Amino acid sequence: MGYAAFAERMGQVNDILNAKSILGWDARTMMPPGGAETRAKQLATLSVLARDHLVADETRSLLDKAEAEVSGLPADSVERTICAQTREAIDYHLRIPADLVRRRAETGSIGQDIWARARADDDFMSFAPVLEETVSLNREMAEHIGYSAHPYDALMHRFEPGETVASLKTLFATLREGMLPLLRAIAEKEGPRFDFLQRPFPKDQQLAFGLKMAERVGYDLNRGRLDTTVHPFEVSFTRNDVRITTRVVEDWMPACLFGSLHEAGHALYEQYCDPAFTRTPLATDLVGLYAVGGVSFGAHESQSRLFENHVGRSREFWELNFAEAQATFPDQLSDIDAETFWRAVNRVAPGFIRVEADELTYDFHIMLRVDIEAALIDGSLKVADLPEAWNAKIKEYLGLDVPNNRLGVLQDVHWSSGQIGTFCNYTIGNVMAGQLFEVATKDAAVAEGMASANYVPLREWMTEHVHRHGRRYSRNQLLEKATGRALDPAPYIAHLTAKYSEIYGI
Amino acid sequence: MGYAAFAERMGQVNDILNAKSILGWDARTMMPPGGAETRAKQLATLSVLARDHLVADETRSLLDKAEAEVSGLPADSVERTICAQTREAIDYHLRIPADLVRRRAETGSIGQDIWARARADDDFMSFAPVLEETVSLNREMAEHIGYSAHPYDALMHRFEPGETVASLKTLFATLREGMLPLLRAIAEKEGPRFDFLQRPFPKDQQLAFGLKMAERVGYDLNRGRLDTTVHPFEVSFTRNDVRITTRVVEDWMPACLFGSLHEAGHALYEQYCDPAFTRTPLATDLVGLYAVGGVSFGAHESQSRLFENHVGRSREFWELNFAEAQATFPDQLSDIDAETFWRAVNRVAPGFIRVEADELTYDFHIMLRVDIEAALIDGSLKVADLPEAWNAKIKEYLGLDVPNNRLGVLQDVHWSSGQIGTFCNYTIGNVMAGQLFEVATKDAAVAEGMASANYVPLREWMTEHVHRHGRRYSRNQLLEKATGRALDPAPYIAHLTAKYSEIYGI
Repeated sequence: MGYAAFAERMGQVNDILNAKSILGWDARTMMPPGGAETRAKQLATLSVLARDHLVADETRSLLDKAEAEVSGLPADSVERTICAQTREAIDYHLRIPADLVRRRAETGSIGQDIWARARADDDFMSFAPVLEETVSLNREMAEHIGYSAHPYDALMHRFEPGETVASLKTLFATLREGMLPLLRAIAEKEGPRFDFLQRPFPKDQQLAFGLKMAERVGYDLNRGRLDTTVHPFEVSFTRNDVRITTRVVEDWMPACLFGSLHEAGHALYEQYCDPAFTRTPLATDLVGLYAVGGVSFGAHESQSRLFENHVGRSREFWELNFAEAQATFPDQLSDIDAETFWRAVNRVAPGFIRVEADELTYDFHIMLRVDIEAALIDGSLKVADLPEAWNAKIKEYLGLDVPNNRLGVLQDVHWSSGQIGTFCNYTIGNVMAGQLFEVATKDAAVAEGMASANYVPLREWMTEHVHRHGRRYSRNQLLEKATGRALDPAPYIAHLTAKYSEIYGI
Repeated sequence: MGYAAFAERMGQVNDILNAKSILGWDARTMMPPGGAETRAKQLATLSVLARDHLVADETRSLLDKAEAEVSGLPADSVERTICAQTREAIDYHLRIPADLVRRRAETGSIGQDIWARARADDDFMSFAPVLEETVSLNREMAEHIGYSAHPYDALMHRFEPGETVASLKTLFATLREGMLPLLRAIAEKEGPRFDFLQRPFPKDQQLAFGLKMAERVGYDLNRGRLDTTVHPFEVSFTRNDVRITTRVVEDWMPACLFGSLHEAGHALYEQYCDPAFTRTPLATDLVGLYAVGGVSFGAHESQSRLFENHVGRSREFWELNFAEAQATFPDQLSDIDAETFWRAVNRVAPGFIRVEADELTYDFHIMLRVDIEAALIDGSLKVADLPEAWNAKIKEYLGLDVPNNRLGVLQDVHWSSGQIGTFCNYTIGNVMAGQLFEVATKDAAVAEGMASANYVPLREWMTEHVHRHGRRYSRNQLLEKATGRALDPAPYIAHLTAKYSEIYGI
């Protein structure tokens, strides 16, 4: 009875956070323009309510009783894990003063407007003061959250628990060591042809094909739907309603296709969480106050990148599925073969904009941001020196001269919304995807499925080893159970090396 | 300060109820089928939260301070009205035991399944026990809410405050006296041709034309959108986001067109509420826990019926707009003229089903339901005798023999969801629409607009006299301010008599 009452209370927290997610999805897909201002207030109220409902005296009293009731169970039982995670989250929120949360939200809401104007005008200095304030507020947050080595570690905790500046330093060095030579070698070679991807591909057929490929890798439309937005995303309102969006560019066919596969990968993580975890903290990020079943942003990204890149950009996938692409787009693809298509969608092209980056250069955009954020937080980099530091790194990694701050330091929305500490998960996700895919494809059924366009065994392997666990285990516990070791970049580097060596004849 | 803090608290109640409305809209328009079960829990949690947030000690303490601060203002000032309405709503909710609310919700949720099966099987007796329970729970509700003359008065309070069994008895008698002779006379005459309305009208054009007519009467798409659902409805998430739905029947063109106009009429009430009332109790039904700006369900229905029937089914409207209908549907309407179209969409055809009833017979469906509900609640009618009582009234009013309970007492969803007391607003709305339209069209600008397909002056008149006031005045106060008198059925009866006399040559 004690535990059941506590569980129902936590179900309500999950309900509130799912309601917030639904309002957010609606705002990005369906809401008429006039609704923006009052929608922001509705979202803010649900945020405050969720936090207050979680830390309320009543929740804590129910938690006390629940803990007493389940104290005889093993420490790693679902019930005790839920109690422990809830207590940790309540402690986390109580450490952060309500006033600081409010000031950060206010700065974020002012910041977005200032940033949008600064970016339009290519005027970094008009954004600098609010960025200074954001850095200062996040530094204050870090002190309240607590850390042992670096204040940036505290900020990453909400997105990638356990990751630290120190651990990332090692990881990034290994990645650079493996990837920079590859990038340098590619720069010397002629790239594959890709002109045909820029032919006009009708919107409706692009969406139909994107959705078909999403369903092929396992996305369940009975518990999902696809819409279009400027920036694709996935969001879940319990495992029973997991929605994805994509974008359509008429003369750039990969945008819709790989956007759909990427978000479908995210969606699988949510759709195949253990149904018993629905409305529990194992499907709720109580620290970040977000209803999600994935254990970290990096773990989530591992599933999107795995289905986008390891599956969707593989030679084997197009050997088996290209005929269907041709049937959907006869006017655009009848003179192209599977091999040419596969090479084209793997073309490497260093550029300034992170969200447009290819599989190989993407991580360099991430490394530069993480290093810069950590330096801003520990004070070793001043906001005023940010553009120079940014541009130097782009030159060092990608060999490009940043022509203006719109193509440089002003490109991302993240800082303007008050968030610092969010970037590392993209690279963590790539590394995890490599590691999980290597082990999964050693399974005979998975390998056989991959060779016959049957992606059910792969999805089932991921469900068994990743999806179903929700937030029960930490990211590294999950990796150890699934692959026998913690985060290891070797398979990812091997994957990149093998693929690009072949395509570029290195 | 005291009042401002109270107002922000009430803004949060409004936010929660708007969030609930958004989840409800999404469930009916966008949600994949798998999401139903968890969505029901999310909606239930938001209901409980809104009620708890309203009656919480903190709200009551803020209300005490706010009342003290505004005690020097006039009693009918916005601030004192808001305080008084909030106190009344809190008292209302505190009178109803939480356990009763829970039992009624449970019976409602079980009831819908049982009703759906009973209707499919035409088996009233399998629905009777849960209806008995519903009647008993509503009787219990009535005792807690309180009433002076009849327990049914207490149940109508949430939907049509101030309306009573006694007041409706007088109103219904007057309506019957005016309308039954008309109905009898029409039965003797040959009806207008309407065959062309059953030609195939393509879905996309129907939607485009319905939306165009909705915009023509004033619906603002910058703060709205149109979707399709099985049953059309309107819902608002503040005046800044007011959505409508309609349904499309390929071979029954009036369904989409008049559905759109009807819901647009509802939408205008919300879109043109005073912006200063946004997030206040004057745009929140604190008794019914529903974020709505209209003062009663009947007042709301007056706007939908006014734009559907007094505008959209008027000869003048089609004299001015029929050319556009022809341009949209050349294959279907080129051989028809405006006069023939106007007559066809005003055809009277007594039938069994309320939601398919024409303008003249609709009220008889309502009168029968209201009388039956009141008799069930005061015990003068037993559930077991319900089909017989129903069928006798259909025979008396419409001259039809009900062949089975699916076409009779089992047709409406309302009772199965636990609701009793909701029906009178449809007829109140018709009566109010007649009264408001009569006075509005005495205004020169309104009359001139109606004669030139410019519906802005009419919409502005309604905004000035109805929409902008939100829930500030009671329904009868509103009517007295707008028309100089309380609810009066004479204009409505005169409207029906004039129109049908002309069409049927009586």
